[in-house]
Amino acid sequence: MSVRTPDPTPEPMPDDPSGGPAWLSDIELEQARGRLPILYVEAVPVRVDGIGQVVEVGVLLRANAVGEMTRTLVSGRVMRGETLREALFRHLEKDLGPMAFPQLPASPVPFHVAEYFPMPGITPFTDDRQHAVSLVYVVPVTGTCEPRQDALELTWMTPEEAASVTVSEEMEGGRGTLLRAALASVGRLL
Amino acid sequence: MSVRTPDPTPEPMPDDPSGGPAWLSDIELEQARGRLPILYVEAVPVRVDGIGQVVEVGVLLRANAVGEMTRTLVSGRVMRGETLREALFRHLEKDLGPMAFPQLPASPVPFHVAEYFPMPGITPFTDDRQHAVSLVYVVPVTGTCEPRQDALELTWMTPEEAASVTVSEEMEGGRGTLLRAALASVGRLL
Amino acid sequence: MSVRTPDPTPEPMPDDPSGGPAWLSDIELEQARGRLPILYVEAVPVRVDGIGQVVEVGVLLRANAVGEMTRTLVSGRVMRGETLREALFRHLEKDLGPMAFPQLPASPVPFHVAEYFPMPGITPFTDDRQHAVSLVYVVPVTGTCEPRQDALELTWMTPEEAASVTVSEEMEGGRGTLLRAALASVGRLL
Amino acid sequence: MSVRTPDPTPEPMPDDPSGGPAWLSDIELEQARGRLPILYVEAVPVRVDGIGQVVEVGVLLRANAVGEMTRTLVSGRVMRGETLREALFRHLEKDLGPMAFPQLPASPVPFHVAEYFPMPGITPFTDDRQHAVSLVYVVPVTGTCEPRQDALELTWMTPEEAASVTVSEEMEGGRGTLLRAALASVGRLL
Repeated sequence: MSVRTPDPTPEPMPDDPSGGPAWLSDIELEQARGRLPILYVEAVPVRVDGIGQVVEVGVLLRANAVGEMTRTLVSGRVMRGETLREALFRHLEKDLGPMAFPQLPASPVPFHVAEYFPMPGITPFTDDRQHAVSLVYVVPVTGTCEPRQDALELTWMTPEEAASVTVSEEMEGGRGTLLRAALASVGRLL
Repeated sequence: MSVRTPDPTPEPMPDDPSGGPAWLSDIELEQARGRLPILYVEAVPVRVDGIGQVVEVGVLLRANAVGEMTRTLVSGRVMRGETLREALFRHLEKDLGPMAFPQLPASPVPFHVAEYFPMPGITPFTDDRQHAVSLVYVVPVTGTCEPRQDALELTWMTPEEAASVTVSEEMEGGRGTLLRAALASVGRLL
Repeated sequence: MSVRTPDPTPEPMPDDPSGGPAWLSDIELEQARGRLPILYVEAVPVRVDGIGQVVEVGVLLRANAVGEMTRTLVSGRVMRGETLREALFRHLEKDLGPMAFPQLPASPVPFHVAEYFPMPGITPFTDDRQHAVSLVYVVPVTGTCEPRQDALELTWMTPEEAASVTVSEEMEGGRGTLLRAALASVGRLL
Repeated sequence: MSVRTPDPTPEPMPDDPSGGPAWLSDIELEQARGRLPILYVEAVPVRVDGIGQVVEVGVLLRANAVGEMTRTLVSGRVMRGETLREALFRHLEKDLGPMAFPQLPASPVPFHVAEYFPMPGITPFTDDRQHAVSLVYVVPVTGTCEPRQDALELTWMTPEEAASVTVSEEMEGGRGTLLRAALASVGRLL
């Protein structure tokens, strides 16, 4: 299975309509990947009840490069000059649409740091394109999610479903492990 | 200065209009304080911007038992049979009113555990009535705050003001230290 | 199954050989349990490799009040006048012996707050004697562990074994959930 | 003042004596810095007492590129193919010597994520060479520290000294803020 940390075709940023130098050409990105760990942010979208308890977890369904259906999280690269919050917000909007109304955490400390390597066995996470280090956050969303771009669907699951072996096996790059760590961090992993 | 962890006159809980056995008489509470550490929850109310960054911090102004004005945080005892989330929500509503719309954290892990002792010097925190252990959370509020009960006013401050020596000296029980720890946990302490 | 948060016969504290007023008689403890949530600390003992990665997890084997064998964690009540660190150290020594050399965390913030209720279903954790709130820490130990008191044995397991359903079913009060949360917090839950 | 995130002349890694492709030439590093945020790890070395409480904080004294004396933390780049733990251990050894015996944290989650930008005002942290994102850890050291390379001295300070304005003003890149956040995370910032 081809597993990948998504890095979709860039769109112009609101404050830099030209696309700007932060966007890398395919060749430049390839070169950078050969030299450095690449920094990512990821988000586990959740629905919470009136006192903040997580009741549902959102997982994206997507066709990968070879046409297989896989599940994944909100995820994307941090660009040069961009803060982590800006990157997180941009990727949440890209993957969940403009009406999701995510509540970004007040603290910039992630619940987990996931290290993706091309070769399996070093950590639970793999990405065949690169060495990526990803700061991962649980993000409550209060609005309506409409996946855009290459994501086909956002599926809302109970914590129990999200932690299941079935869902884990469908998730790319070992992110079933990440989903369980997210549930544990909010006291919802049995 | 008399410093105290607030424990106001009980109100009936929504799901137990009788007041119920969780409420202790003054004598029972006094006995318990002589025997055990008492569990509290505290909240630092904050305003956040569109990408979750803290822009303002709310501090309560209150007259203490001897009529002095002091500043404090949202704070109160956890009752027997009550979850931490329920206690946190109850005290937020008690201190900020029913229209504050607090966003309780998805994670039950506090940013800090404050240990209050009657005698100073053991920790930065004191409470002349008891040994209290308090789980402290940063809680964004999105609605309108109308302090109730014995609180006179909720003052919104910038992170810089909240961290100042002046504000610290007005806060009861060493909570200036707690306010700075809250700001540090959200990346807003200079 | 009778599940209980251990509260063994008190021993004199090093700095208070008389036993002192912090120790409660059985009747006083019973009264307190009828009135208030009781504060506990718990520890998941671990072995780490040269760069701090958890390689083994320690689980206690103990006979409970009705003579059944159950597994549990290092656990005990915080006494009045005692800091959380002192309580954690005392219970680690009580359960692992004086040569365990635990490395208590520099941060007082637990990786999890477990809420135990007498009735199941409110949280994953139950304690038929009381409402207990427990601050739970992962604690590397570097010495030799010799369980004392009522614990029969300390079993070292791999992270995979510790997370298994078999071990979970043997743990009292729902602590299998706590063990998985501990593993997730150190990046060792698959 | 020239402020910089240290990136000293590479030494061969134990498992790759050739230096290997993970090391970048000056030109390659310059190119990467023009395109991507660069990932760093940083450590605040501390001394702890017998129950894990921080009693002293270590700060490096170093001559910067223009010969000024500045204070800084243990810090360095994460290389391609290297785990965060390996990078943290490598930089601790580089800056504190081989006999420091650092106790790396069991959890890979940093207490803070510091974002360094070339231009001031975006965050409290600046680095005139690059956009760097740094995962920062508090690391107890139990051995003897002998700063190597370009560091002249490791100064042990009390928490009060480390949090002072005087020390803050001597620290490069805004790291006085980081030092205070470290102290707050271990309950030692007043």
